[in-house]
Amino acid sequence: MKTIAVIISDFFEDSEYTEPAEAFRKAGHKLVHIGLKENQTVKGKNKATPVRVELAVKDVSADDYDALLIPGGYSPDKLRADEDAVRFVKAFFESGKPVFAICHAPQLLITADILRGRKVTGWKSIIQDIKNAGATFVDAAVVEDGNLVSSRYPGDLPEFIRVSLNKL
Amino acid sequence: MKTIAVIISDFFEDSEYTEPAEAFRKAGHKLVHIGLKENQTVKGKNKATPVRVELAVKDVSADDYDALLIPGGYSPDKLRADEDAVRFVKAFFESGKPVFAICHAPQLLITADILRGRKVTGWKSIIQDIKNAGATFVDAAVVEDGNLVSSRYPGDLPEFIRVSLNKL
Repeated sequence: MKTIAVIISDFFEDSEYTEPAEAFRKAGHKLVHIGLKENQTVKGKNKATPVRVELAVKDVSADDYDALLIPGGYSPDKLRADEDAVRFVKAFFESGKPVFAICHAPQLLITADILRGRKVTGWKSIIQDIKNAGATFVDAAVVEDGNLVSSRYPGDLPEFIRVSLNKL
Repeated sequence: MKTIAVIISDFFEDSEYTEPAEAFRKAGHKLVHIGLKENQTVKGKNKATPVRVELAVKDVSADDYDALLIPGGYSPDKLRADEDAVRFVKAFFESGKPVFAICHAPQLLITADILRGRKVTGWKSIIQDIKNAGATFVDAAVVEDGNLVSSRYPGDLPEFIRVSLNKL
């Protein structure tokens, strides 16, 4: 059993949280929800799926988790505006442990300045940002480069989940 | 009287549309609302302010307008995923006519690849994207560089509107 940190804020893309979360739990792993404020409920942008944020990102350490899931939607835009969230994601990425990023999630990796030289995919609106950050954008359902697993949008979830589970 | 194109989609930051629009109309200017589909009503992300999109961006020409307003919020993220919107904004910017960009609006200018060497400001979540696009980020209420007027967030609206009106 692994412990997976989920970093999440309001307006996340519902299925990009619910489907990986369900698959990880079914495989016996544990999820810890991390956000901007502890004991806060955040909601998805389409179905208003509620997610209880257990811990504030300012209070957590990358050492305590085995992998990191970053759902997409507009949640990454909110998180990247927070210095503690950026610092946590940067530390996590640099630890070499698996990072699962889908849709707009690379925005958070861009602000953490960790994409240079990496192969990555993401939602089409951020392709130019990914390229400008020094990464190679790959238009594929799932892209694996070292510890980073990335996908483009909800239609890629089966592949995203399959490859992510293999990393755990 | 000038004709100002407003390029807008769902989840725009309400006041970043309503306040400049009111000021431009009071000064005697005309607004034309351009979006992804004609005769579609889009809504703001906070107050669900309705805006009637009159024309689809695929059917318009930069030649027909004297200035361009790009409200922020998540509207620019939706617009930059559309090739016609990116092409229109690029053509408009390169015409040298005034472009008024606030909050997340520089995202659309990044995808149009027109920020290199420019001084610009915007919402804090996109600072790294602005820098990676080859622009100089300036943390000020309003930044004027050639035909481009930019501001950070709704609190900057008085300065944004004042400088924009001077450009018309």
